[in-house]
Amino acid sequence: MQDVPELVAQAREGRPRAVARLISLVEGASPRLREVMAALAPFAGNAYVIGLTGPPGAGKSTSTSALISAYRRAGRRVAVLAVDPSSPFSGGALLGDRVRMSEHASDPGVYIRSMATRGHLGGLARAAPQAIRVLDAAGCDVIVVETVGVGQSEVEIAAQADTSVVLLAPGMGDSIQAAKAGILEIGDVYVVNKADRDGADATARELNHMLALGESRGPGDWRPPIVKTVASRGEGIDEVVQALEKHRAWMEEHGVLTARRTRRAAHEVETLAVTALRARIADLHGDRRLDALAERIVAGDLDPYAAADELVAGVTGGR
Amino acid sequence: MQDVPELVAQAREGRPRAVARLISLVEGASPRLREVMAALAPFAGNAYVIGLTGPPGAGKSTSTSALISAYRRAGRRVAVLAVDPSSPFSGGALLGDRVRMSEHASDPGVYIRSMATRGHLGGLARAAPQAIRVLDAAGCDVIVVETVGVGQSEVEIAAQADTSVVLLAPGMGDSIQAAKAGILEIGDVYVVNKADRDGADATARELNHMLALGESRGPGDWRPPIVKTVASRGEGIDEVVQALEKHRAWMEEHGVLTARRTRRAAHEVETLAVTALRARIADLHGDRRLDALAERIVAGDLDPYAAADELVAGVTGGR
Repeated sequence: MQDVPELVAQAREGRPRAVARLISLVEGASPRLREVMAALAPFAGNAYVIGLTGPPGAGKSTSTSALISAYRRAGRRVAVLAVDPSSPFSGGALLGDRVRMSEHASDPGVYIRSMATRGHLGGLARAAPQAIRVLDAAGCDVIVVETVGVGQSEVEIAAQADTSVVLLAPGMGDSIQAAKAGILEIGDVYVVNKADRDGADATARELNHMLALGESRGPGDWRPPIVKTVASRGEGIDEVVQALEKHRAWMEEHGVLTARRTRRAAHEVETLAVTALRARIADLHGDRRLDALAERIVAGDLDPYAAADELVAGVTGGR
Repeated sequence: MQDVPELVAQAREGRPRAVARLISLVEGASPRLREVMAALAPFAGNAYVIGLTGPPGAGKSTSTSALISAYRRAGRRVAVLAVDPSSPFSGGALLGDRVRMSEHASDPGVYIRSMATRGHLGGLARAAPQAIRVLDAAGCDVIVVETVGVGQSEVEIAAQADTSVVLLAPGMGDSIQAAKAGILEIGDVYVVNKADRDGADATARELNHMLALGESRGPGDWRPPIVKTVASRGEGIDEVVQALEKHRAWMEEHGVLTARRTRRAAHEVETLAVTALRARIADLHGDRRLDALAERIVAGDLDPYAAADELVAGVTGGR
């Protein structure tokens, strides 16, 4: 087994096998996870992370593929993390409509990875930020995190991005209505794809209306633009990239990028800390200390709050 | 404002206003919650808690009302905690089809309370065990916790019971199929209500078949009985009470009752302790300590796991 510093060095040289190995290590909660995360830390924070989400059929894979092409023309190294909550498969394989990205499969400047949940969306939400760290440290300039749907977990994963793109298509009025609340909260850039179809203008208008309704922006605040594309023909993709770069520049100018990344890191640390504290309580369970407290409650010698205090004291040493 | 020991004393005399006041205190996470819980602890563990759940239309309120009558005939004090996840109302009022229980409204030996979630099912699951403690300490012999549906939260609330009754009715095949997995895990006693209708035998047979399929019981294990009732006419209710008493006797004989209550108390304490530890992390957030860690991660000076270690050390004093 290769040692971690060697893997990190190879990943930074752009070797896909090393990148894949590191993602597997962080994804699988390997015992070497901590070692990997420590080795990656110094190389963090260079990649621009774009979240791309939207209902099935909006053309996410096609749009991602077109974005890859545009960034490649600009000489950037690109990674795609395709998160599929419904797929039981995970790993480096090009899955299902990832075939649409197959044109990039032989390009050493593009790394594509599918992550699946295997029924554990919580686990995925934990693994995604760590996979992003690997891709970031490996020297990718742009990381596109593509997720299906706008459910709660997708929203959480989209929250890992620096800029969130919400993709819609004409004739999906119902899904817009249904996802309305979620969509309006997370989009920094909106894209109406399949703009050559009937109803594209109506969808853009409706979206514009909904965004205006929810608006409570001050001067200098970011106003999410709506871009129309035909991703299958590459139309409008340059405008999407311009909107993305504009959002990135706005975030940097206003200190928003660092603030977002700091908030994200804080949330991640908090989650890891709560998990660690839960594990300590589970250890007390193993020691039968929790059971002993529970028995005293059932016997009427103790109330649950006083018992919780004792448990907390057992974890914290009475602080 | 009355003091807590006085309220507890009045509740133990069976005064409904004192019981209502105590439940409101524990339900609303009042600052006096801890005081109330400590005052109740010595009087815990006398009530027999029956969980009653099933799909809408199975006849839960009618069955509960019939059960109240049966237990009242036996001279027991009875409480009903009617948990309605869809209702925005809470409190002592007789809601909706609680009218079917109105025959018991003037009986001082019966206490009926509705609890609603107001959109916070997690909060309800926390409040229910505490309301049960109040009713238990108030000297109720039997507490029926009636919940709608067999969703995850209802399952959690049913897990508060000593004995769980799952109520079904003929012609609800689809809902049985849908809820199959959940239903088969939680029932100690199954009731097919509206047994005078077509399909009652088929429903009982299907249920029996499903229970047999999932069976991995050893000799001496409890085999959930299936009882047929026409609750609106009181038919079969005595058989339900017999099945309940038989289950209770079996649990006592095999040490299962204490084991279940201990496991429940352990789970409750664990939840309270994790909540308390989360609050301590939030305090560190308030101290900007978490933010400082997050800033170091974004700067690449620290990885999230090492940061979580520091956070945990901040809570536990390095233990």
